[in-house]
Amino acid sequence: MTKPHRIVVEPLVRTALLEDLAHGNDLTTDSIVSAETHATAGIVARAPGVLAGLDAALLAFELLDPGAVRASRPRADGERIERGDTIVALEGRARTLLTGERTMLNILCHLSGIATATRALVDTVAGTKATIADTRKTTPGLRALEKYAVRCGGGSNHRFGLDDAVLIKDNHLALAGSIRQAVARVRTVAGHMVKIEVEVDTLDQLREALNERIDAVLLDNMNPATLAEAVRIVDGRVITEASGGIRHENVRAVAESGVDLISIGYLTHSAPQLDLGLDIVL
Amino acid sequence: MTKPHRIVVEPLVRTALLEDLAHGNDLTTDSIVSAETHATAGIVARAPGVLAGLDAALLAFELLDPGAVRASRPRADGERIERGDTIVALEGRARTLLTGERTMLNILCHLSGIATATRALVDTVAGTKATIADTRKTTPGLRALEKYAVRCGGGSNHRFGLDDAVLIKDNHLALAGSIRQAVARVRTVAGHMVKIEVEVDTLDQLREALNERIDAVLLDNMNPATLAEAVRIVDGRVITEASGGIRHENVRAVAESGVDLISIGYLTHSAPQLDLGLDIVL
Amino acid sequence: MTKPHRIVVEPLVRTALLEDLAHGNDLTTDSIVSAETHATAGIVARAPGVLAGLDAALLAFELLDPGAVRASRPRADGERIERGDTIVALEGRARTLLTGERTMLNILCHLSGIATATRALVDTVAGTKATIADTRKTTPGLRALEKYAVRCGGGSNHRFGLDDAVLIKDNHLALAGSIRQAVARVRTVAGHMVKIEVEVDTLDQLREALNERIDAVLLDNMNPATLAEAVRIVDGRVITEASGGIRHENVRAVAESGVDLISIGYLTHSAPQLDLGLDIVL
Amino acid sequence: MTKPHRIVVEPLVRTALLEDLAHGNDLTTDSIVSAETHATAGIVARAPGVLAGLDAALLAFELLDPGAVRASRPRADGERIERGDTIVALEGRARTLLTGERTMLNILCHLSGIATATRALVDTVAGTKATIADTRKTTPGLRALEKYAVRCGGGSNHRFGLDDAVLIKDNHLALAGSIRQAVARVRTVAGHMVKIEVEVDTLDQLREALNERIDAVLLDNMNPATLAEAVRIVDGRVITEASGGIRHENVRAVAESGVDLISIGYLTHSAPQLDLGLDIVL
Amino acid sequence: MTKPHRIVVEPLVRTALLEDLAHGNDLTTDSIVSAETHATAGIVARAPGVLAGLDAALLAFELLDPGAVRASRPRADGERIERGDTIVALEGRARTLLTGERTMLNILCHLSGIATATRALVDTVAGTKATIADTRKTTPGLRALEKYAVRCGGGSNHRFGLDDAVLIKDNHLALAGSIRQAVARVRTVAGHMVKIEVEVDTLDQLREALNERIDAVLLDNMNPATLAEAVRIVDGRVITEASGGIRHENVRAVAESGVDLISIGYLTHSAPQLDLGLDIVL
Amino acid sequence: MTKPHRIVVEPLVRTALLEDLAHGNDLTTDSIVSAETHATAGIVARAPGVLAGLDAALLAFELLDPGAVRASRPRADGERIERGDTIVALEGRARTLLTGERTMLNILCHLSGIATATRALVDTVAGTKATIADTRKTTPGLRALEKYAVRCGGGSNHRFGLDDAVLIKDNHLALAGSIRQAVARVRTVAGHMVKIEVEVDTLDQLREALNERIDAVLLDNMNPATLAEAVRIVDGRVITEASGGIRHENVRAVAESGVDLISIGYLTHSAPQLDLGLDIVL
Repeated sequence: MTKPHRIVVEPLVRTALLEDLAHGNDLTTDSIVSAETHATAGIVARAPGVLAGLDAALLAFELLDPGAVRASRPRADGERIERGDTIVALEGRARTLLTGERTMLNILCHLSGIATATRALVDTVAGTKATIADTRKTTPGLRALEKYAVRCGGGSNHRFGLDDAVLIKDNHLALAGSIRQAVARVRTVAGHMVKIEVEVDTLDQLREALNERIDAVLLDNMNPATLAEAVRIVDGRVITEASGGIRHENVRAVAESGVDLISIGYLTHSAPQLDLGLDIVL
Repeated sequence: MTKPHRIVVEPLVRTALLEDLAHGNDLTTDSIVSAETHATAGIVARAPGVLAGLDAALLAFELLDPGAVRASRPRADGERIERGDTIVALEGRARTLLTGERTMLNILCHLSGIATATRALVDTVAGTKATIADTRKTTPGLRALEKYAVRCGGGSNHRFGLDDAVLIKDNHLALAGSIRQAVARVRTVAGHMVKIEVEVDTLDQLREALNERIDAVLLDNMNPATLAEAVRIVDGRVITEASGGIRHENVRAVAESGVDLISIGYLTHSAPQLDLGLDIVL
Repeated sequence: MTKPHRIVVEPLVRTALLEDLAHGNDLTTDSIVSAETHATAGIVARAPGVLAGLDAALLAFELLDPGAVRASRPRADGERIERGDTIVALEGRARTLLTGERTMLNILCHLSGIATATRALVDTVAGTKATIADTRKTTPGLRALEKYAVRCGGGSNHRFGLDDAVLIKDNHLALAGSIRQAVARVRTVAGHMVKIEVEVDTLDQLREALNERIDAVLLDNMNPATLAEAVRIVDGRVITEASGGIRHENVRAVAESGVDLISIGYLTHSAPQLDLGLDIVL
Repeated sequence: MTKPHRIVVEPLVRTALLEDLAHGNDLTTDSIVSAETHATAGIVARAPGVLAGLDAALLAFELLDPGAVRASRPRADGERIERGDTIVALEGRARTLLTGERTMLNILCHLSGIATATRALVDTVAGTKATIADTRKTTPGLRALEKYAVRCGGGSNHRFGLDDAVLIKDNHLALAGSIRQAVARVRTVAGHMVKIEVEVDTLDQLREALNERIDAVLLDNMNPATLAEAVRIVDGRVITEASGGIRHENVRAVAESGVDLISIGYLTHSAPQLDLGLDIVL
Repeated sequence: MTKPHRIVVEPLVRTALLEDLAHGNDLTTDSIVSAETHATAGIVARAPGVLAGLDAALLAFELLDPGAVRASRPRADGERIERGDTIVALEGRARTLLTGERTMLNILCHLSGIATATRALVDTVAGTKATIADTRKTTPGLRALEKYAVRCGGGSNHRFGLDDAVLIKDNHLALAGSIRQAVARVRTVAGHMVKIEVEVDTLDQLREALNERIDAVLLDNMNPATLAEAVRIVDGRVITEASGGIRHENVRAVAESGVDLISIGYLTHSAPQLDLGLDIVL
Repeated sequence: MTKPHRIVVEPLVRTALLEDLAHGNDLTTDSIVSAETHATAGIVARAPGVLAGLDAALLAFELLDPGAVRASRPRADGERIERGDTIVALEGRARTLLTGERTMLNILCHLSGIATATRALVDTVAGTKATIADTRKTTPGLRALEKYAVRCGGGSNHRFGLDDAVLIKDNHLALAGSIRQAVARVRTVAGHMVKIEVEVDTLDQLREALNERIDAVLLDNMNPATLAEAVRIVDGRVITEASGGIRHENVRAVAESGVDLISIGYLTHSAPQLDLGLDIVL
């Protein structure tokens, strides 16, 4: 798993810390715990799942108090963990551990929740050729991290923004008049390193799309039978992506249609957190 | 519901838009849709729930292209909506609608999901004296908005950060030596406008806490019977808050113990989004 | 004294340094002093007072040139110092000392001036039960630091913003219609960790306020005799705060009325700086 | 008076507002005052003085709620005002007036305090050729505004940073070896648009400085008689500036020595605020 | 030409204005020109070329003083202009025009210089199938705008960053061991919307690359004859890009080799500005 | 050469890195190169020139991955380098070297290009008294660095912004009515540390300007003969600056007119980059 660079992650972690410390102090810890008190602590799993986001989470301690907390990491992002597992062993200033605890956990539990949800779907479609992918339905400000969490769970990333790939949707088609027109206009702007995907609702639209030089088709809201027919029509010429209304219950059926990719907004907009805690030994 | 001020919300919305436009362009829309094309659109509910975050969501269009999109709002934050309801009617530049759509929906669906989850719990405890409250287990960068969404769902806000109220937890107590010591140290720092709450695990600890001048007790991980006993012991002298392991299944039983407040991290760390969509009529 | 966290203070120190270096260079020092020249220096008191702000002040050197200057601190924030005392002994790159000197002193002299003014009032009311408190009449951008300086001088902090506690003033009352209405409306929004104070101008208003569940009353612009009567009426049920027109001359009389708290804007809006200098030994 | 451009002032005003609203809401106003309530208000002088900072102060309302408050200004920056004068008449949303009040006043009272202190000294030296000037002893983050306030009071600005002019002080001289060496090194770096001033402690040093091509001399801590002798020696060849230990009591004597400029740190580091208030008529 | 969104461009223009106004004022204009003086002005070409960057350039006036300057634009980005042509007619506050002039021109002349240089190369290869493309050799902070300028000149954009497409270079190949290994590793990370290009130095390497599922090959530093041979080998299976040492003198020969794309760093790292001026009529 | 302070340079380098990594990852390097792989590398000249910007350029590695890359520097800013010279020897994490390479080179090649162009002109006028100076025609966001590069090339800096010196141009004169009026108005605002230059088009205007107390005259667009006459008229009373239409071809003739300063926008708006490369030895 390639981790997002610190230079991209740091502003978010800083913002999160300032949500707790806007007026300057942790009123509880700063008055009760002396600056000299040291402690050890463990990040411990309270439920099974898949880990994601350790670097970003631990950055909370580092930004709060550079060098004050040392971490050793028996477990790494992307690994499956069981209830009771110690993920990270921490040691250092007690104040920093207590003040940074919530920010650290908020990041780690959220991202691990996404990795866990992704892994569950990836396992469900195991043995098919389908890859589970994310969408742009991410939490504001967390896209790079959430898409990293999807990778930790064994999923694949769809485009990262509106600026790195082209996805021509129904509204674009309506305005362009035809798939041909839409692709032509895009080609006048997009460079040679930009992939183009077209969303189609019907098999007729699919056939129309295949007449153009495109890289992928998004098969929107089709049932498994129609998807299988679409895969036959495409016959390997472009990447096939199923999307819309896919959940745990039907993802296997969708995968068995033979599509290359199944994209699921749920991974990043509705996955519950993974329950992890910080046990401090003072 | 008092909305977070725009000056606080704007940086998050700007960050979210830049996640889509970091390299400068919406490659698809900017090349297919002309700057002159206008459209109307409706934000439509695809599931029932409670609305939250309209101002923040619509700010996406305003920051993207000031004045380009006008909104009329048949529905307001905090209202229950049904599948099929039109929440907002939009009219303006088609480009702005298409480019801002995802950021707008990511904000609105996430916050409405929290309001919906909150409302479900609030309704479940209706008739008891218990208030449903949030925690600091929020998504990094979204705390002010998520706590607003909890209010939209009929819930109440616990403290906003480590800087606006004191909550003395088990680790603080261990370091201070006793509840008396901990409260004394806090009093040397916290001004007269700061409330103090103490977390207790047992009824003995509760009795010890009640000897101090505090404002609230957090009754951690107690079952309904113990909670009821705790409420009897407190006898109205301080606010009683139940916390830990409370879910939809047991929240009513907890509420019937007579506690004033039930705080639930789930509201902000695991509530699924509310499904809303943007229907564009070109 | 609990110090504001570095993550909150750093942006202000950075801004201050850039006020001196916006165009990139210290034209004088950078051309005259070589990068290799080392020096020792002492921060020395040129007048007696109380120290505040050492961490923030010394951060100027650290942000300018990480690791270039080492400091040993014979004296600490909150201590009384006499004319001629050496507060800090510095050693390191001469350039850094010379370029950072003014920013460092501007922070330290300003905050120590506030601590000194606070201590003078605290001493004046010694033996009474009154605590000296600050207000929100702070210098733009320096609130967390200025409130810390008040703590260094032995004072107490009133609320930090409009977002951490409720103070219902005359204008709010006028709009709400009555104290009862105002408190009721606030209760629908403020969580259980928020304290509520009501400003009253007369003893009748005070009696009205005491009928509501509030935490404190601000007794506005009352003379010592009226304050004493107010304290008798309150009889310990809520915190009593005297405010308005209180200066060094009359603060003792106010304190002897028996109020819990005396809040004074002067501490943060008009305290003169404490005269400290940097003596460099090249 | 040339006002600092809005693009420079806006970040400070935004920071100041966020000190009050970090967690999102004005808990008092937002819950008591409806968004529809309008009010009129007046900024009124509670003491005589000189006005400074109206644009920056009123920007608080504009950033909080664009277009919500309209202002008419009977009085302008730089004007003398008397107790009871209405400085600005405001009209608009009551919420915005109440929430922005403190930030607005904190800016206006602070800057007007500086203008008032400056004007008092300017008047004291009236009839002499001396100009009253500021220093770099300003409040962190407020330099551009505080130096503007000095201009509003009839004073003149010394350099704005370390980057716009050269002032060779005793420490620089010690490191360079001689005034000649110091000026020579500076000339290798500073462009033709940079003025050079040298600080001298004695008349011998003054004579040495006058051998170099410099623009001004800072006569440090000299008494009026020595200053008069220095002025005779300089004989109009460079600008003469008196500095160090000058206060209201001795500024006239210093001015009568014939120096061109008297620089006084007090103006920006210790001037008390001017008492102005906001009277709201609901 | 699709323009970069304002939300992306605004920070750069703001930074540029602050380079001129860091200490708050335009010392010359603010003192000489009254706030009421109006003027008309024209942006006029002093040399022939291609226009690029009008929106970004005019944003300087808008950010400086919202609404103070109105512009009518006889000419648009991407158009060829002749010496003497009026590009934009401006009307409004004289102060704003004078203070914003340099920032506006610095942006417009720089970007138009890039568009002009691009157009010259595009014209030189006219009639061949080759497209002229940019690189990541852009000026720090200006990438989105410079790549837009290349589009204005008729060129095409290579990838925008390291984050939107894959380009496997010699160093990557050395570390991976083989092209096969390198592509395989990339495929484990890059999603289906990411294009992959491989840099090859020899025809043998080219043949090796064509065995993998890639989208483009960068033919590095090959002469026209070798390029022609490479094009024959590729036979339309992937996009062919020539790069390295290509200048005005040899670009036609390179284009005639039949490559799809010629990428040239010169466009963005060394194109001289286009000479445009602001003629103010007071 | 005095280098711009890191606190001023860092934001630009950070922005440049984020242009490459906005979405979080270097898709190519992060997937192919392991975090443990080390490498050595050299920054090597591919053309002769003058070096400028090493600190700023190497900051790219440091911000990307603190401590990951160590540099030894055989050559320093301001030195002449020949094709093939190794400028810097680097050693450290291969990933950091590969990901930071382009940002590092974009900074170093651009600034060294400016230093090289400056040095060429400085050498051309060697033996005359003329100094080569820059202008405010700089690339947005890079002014402090570009003006430093000019110093590295042996040139001198004109003013840095509109805020550090006064230059009265034709438009200002037209609005003021006369040079006398313009200078008088400026004197009411500009402090004693601000230099004043007046732009003149004719010798008559020059004579008029010399009647005022100013520091320099900008002789606009005059031919060498007229410049020589102007120098005679000025007779050393103020600094003389030639500007307008000066290029490599005519700069020597201009210099021989006897002017003090020749300012040339070309240095910063049109100098081609210096070709430097990073050779990595894995």
